[in-house]
Amino acid sequence: MKKINISDKFSQFKEVWTPKVIAESNGQLVKIAKGSGELVSHKHDNEDELFIVFKGQLTLQLRSENIVLKPGEMYVVPRGVEHCPKAEPDTHFMMIEPSSTAHTGEHHTEVTVSSEQQEWI
Amino acid sequence: MKKINISDKFSQFKEVWTPKVIAESNGQLVKIAKGSGELVSHKHDNEDELFIVFKGQLTLQLRSENIVLKPGEMYVVPRGVEHCPKAEPDTHFMMIEPSSTAHTGEHHTEVTVSSEQQEWI
Repeated sequence: MKKINISDKFSQFKEVWTPKVIAESNGQLVKIAKGSGELVSHKHDNEDELFIVFKGQLTLQLRSENIVLKPGEMYVVPRGVEHCPKAEPDTHFMMIEPSSTAHTGEHHTEVTVSSEQQEWI
Repeated sequence: MKKINISDKFSQFKEVWTPKVIAESNGQLVKIAKGSGELVSHKHDNEDELFIVFKGQLTLQLRSENIVLKPGEMYVVPRGVEHCPKAEPDTHFMMIEPSSTAHTGEHHTEVTVSSEQQEWI
């Protein structure tokens, strides 16, 4: 493989809440996404989900508290924990999660991007 | 867990080639390390190793080529691939790898930090 420049990858798409896969490692996918506004509350019963923010502000709204992530900050949402991501306009973030992870967990909505639809860039 | 500020974590230690664990997700550990000079050539037979550089320059010297990573760049060294990391002074980088991953693979040298010795910060 070639090395990956993360900001180059962010420059290749504009859609929000549409994860793009940029690498695979040990059965986990490295995905990047842009966010703006609110996604939908969901959980992943069998997968922890690692978030790293590169630009903007991503709030992971949990039932117990809000985790507000700015650039250079990260958080792991443990499996089974309900979270509703909310982002300031033009927020850029990375997720690392098993390839089995469903985008919006058990909630299939019109904004859901199935794993099969998640494009490699 | 609390959110993690990655640069705050880097400010908590000075040693080079001494991975510190900052998070766990799906059986993989998120580690950060500082590098300067050369480590030792090694491979991990069963683990892919994801590198992300935050500061400085990290060169992954493979047998086939040198992968030169600057801030915002990443690379996955596939399992079984020999690599010798080399870094400019005060290079900061992250590794994500299974908890089973041995620091310098099959090469146990005086610079090796065993998994048990890799401190959580």
